[in-house]
Order: sequence, then structure tokens, then C-alpha cells
Amino acid sequence: MRILGIDPGLATMGFGVVDSDGKKPRLVTAGAVITTPDMRMYERLLKIHDDVRDLIQLYKPDDIVFEELFFARNVTTALNVGAARGTALCACAEFTDSIYEYTPMQIKQAVVGYGKADKHQIQHMVKLLLGLPDIIRPDDAADAVAAALTHFNAGHMKSEYRMK
Amino acid sequence: MRILGIDPGLATMGFGVVDSDGKKPRLVTAGAVITTPDMRMYERLLKIHDDVRDLIQLYKPDDIVFEELFFARNVTTALNVGAARGTALCACAEFTDSIYEYTPMQIKQAVVGYGKADKHQIQHMVKLLLGLPDIIRPDDAADAVAAALTHFNAGHMKSEYRMK
Repeated sequence: MRILGIDPGLATMGFGVVDSDGKKPRLVTAGAVITTPDMRMYERLLKIHDDVRDLIQLYKPDDIVFEELFFARNVTTALNVGAARGTALCACAEFTDSIYEYTPMQIKQAVVGYGKADKHQIQHMVKLLLGLPDIIRPDDAADAVAAALTHFNAGHMKSEYRMK
Repeated sequence: MRILGIDPGLATMGFGVVDSDGKKPRLVTAGAVITTPDMRMYERLLKIHDDVRDLIQLYKPDDIVFEELFFARNVTTALNVGAARGTALCACAEFTDSIYEYTPMQIKQAVVGYGKADKHQIQHMVKLLLGLPDIIRPDDAADAVAAALTHFNAGHMKSEYRMK
């Protein structure tokens, strides 16, 4: 089974693809879609849409997992992050309805065993769980991989985490 | 010249298409894309994306105009409205970069002559300006038409309103 994890954001959208045969998970790829403030808003969104579409077409995941957003510094930030997340979601929905969502706390709990773990602890545990030679950078990519690992952990309970 | 106006929202996204030969504007169509809370979030976004794409393919506007969002009741609302707006923007960016944006105050000033006009005054003035037999409903559709009319008014100044 193959999972695509996505940590949504406008400037940096982390992604990670993980395979598992039910025993040990294996990292396929991880990275980030980067857009910069010198791009027009709709150019940034179109890049996010097209890059997410390309990832799905290339890696053909069985399930897609988003880290849930429920925090933003203010309304303006929320409008922008919401736009990035919505665009990525839309690109996913063009291919599948196997879309799941975990809160940051659920992901930290599953991967680190502690719901208030920090970015470095997540990067460290993702490295250990996947037997990698180094941590995954940027941390948004590590977060996306952690979301995918959380989904493997959820096992037969995963239907509870289908996105509403 | 043909303008597509969009008033972004998740539950109700108003749209309006207006033609002008430089003298009198003419209404081509107006309406709203409706999505309901019983749909999953990504289904709502996919519907918005596909309906906006269909509108553009059908009516082939020269320019597209958005009513700018900078207000939301709270961060959760902003994430959802931002997602709807971002998805619509992305669908537009697949066809054109002639995308413009006006604030609600600029639209009210242009159409009613008063930056704090209410929904009913906008509906009434849109009806008068286009010589319609009745007001346009819902008000989101009237707002979208008002945004398109504002763009005609902007004339050679319109490049100042290109979306950033």
C-alpha cells in the first residue's frame, strides 16, 4: 500500500510518499512544493495544483493524507493557507476520494508518542522509523511523511479519519 | 469585451458575465455555484473548480474579476472561504492571467456611488445599469455582476487592479 502525505502551506507545501507491506514502511520520496511572494497569487495556486497532480500521476498513491489545519496567526494568513490547502485538495479530488486527515497532535502522538512533540523530534523519529541515513528536510516534508506513517498506524481504524 | 465577475464563497459562489461595447453594458448570464455542508470538503472544492472551468470554457471571458476578500468572522471561516476562493482562482489561472481584483468598497463606490452601500442598493443599481426587469438573486450573483461592471468603469486604469 502506498500513501501520499501532504502538509499544506502556500510558501512551502511538504509532501512524502511511503510504501508499506504491513511490516516495515519504506520511503519512496519526500520534498516540498515551493512558491515565492514574487509570484502572483493565482500563479502560486496553479503551481501547487499542477505539482500535486503530477505527484499523484507519477506515484499513484492508494490513499492521500492531509495534516489538518486549524491554526493560523490571523485571518489574512488563514485565507492564504486555506487557498493553498483547498487547491491541493481539489487536485487530489480529481483522482480519488480516498482522502484522510489527521490533526498535528494525532500525528505527533502516532510518530513520537507525545502529542506536543516539536519539529526536531518528528524529524528524528521519521528518520529512525524509515531507517534513513539523515533527517528529512525541510520540516514540512518530514511532517508530510509523518502524516503518511500515522495513516499506516491507524490500520483498520483509518475510515474514522476520512476527510469530511 | 466580455467580463466574468466572481464573488467567492464556499456555500455560494456568485458569478456574472457582462458584455460591453464601451457604451452600454449587457448582462449575458448570472447565477451561483452552490455547495452544501453534506458534501465532503474536497467534493465541494472540486465542484467549484469544475463549474468555474465550465463557465470560462462556455463564455470565454476576456478578463476575470474577483471581489477581494479580506474579512472573515474567524480563522476557521477564513480557511474555508480561502479554500473556495483559491480553488476558483486556480481554475481561472488554467486559462488566463487577465485576473483582476476589487475591494467591496471599490465595487460599491463604482456601482452605487457610495462605498458603504448595502446589498439591496447594489442589487437595485445593477438592475438599473443593465436595464433588467428585476433584481438579480441571490445577492452573491448581483455582487459578482457589480464586480464586472466596476471593471468596465476602471477603463484604462484597470491594470492597477491586476491581482498580485
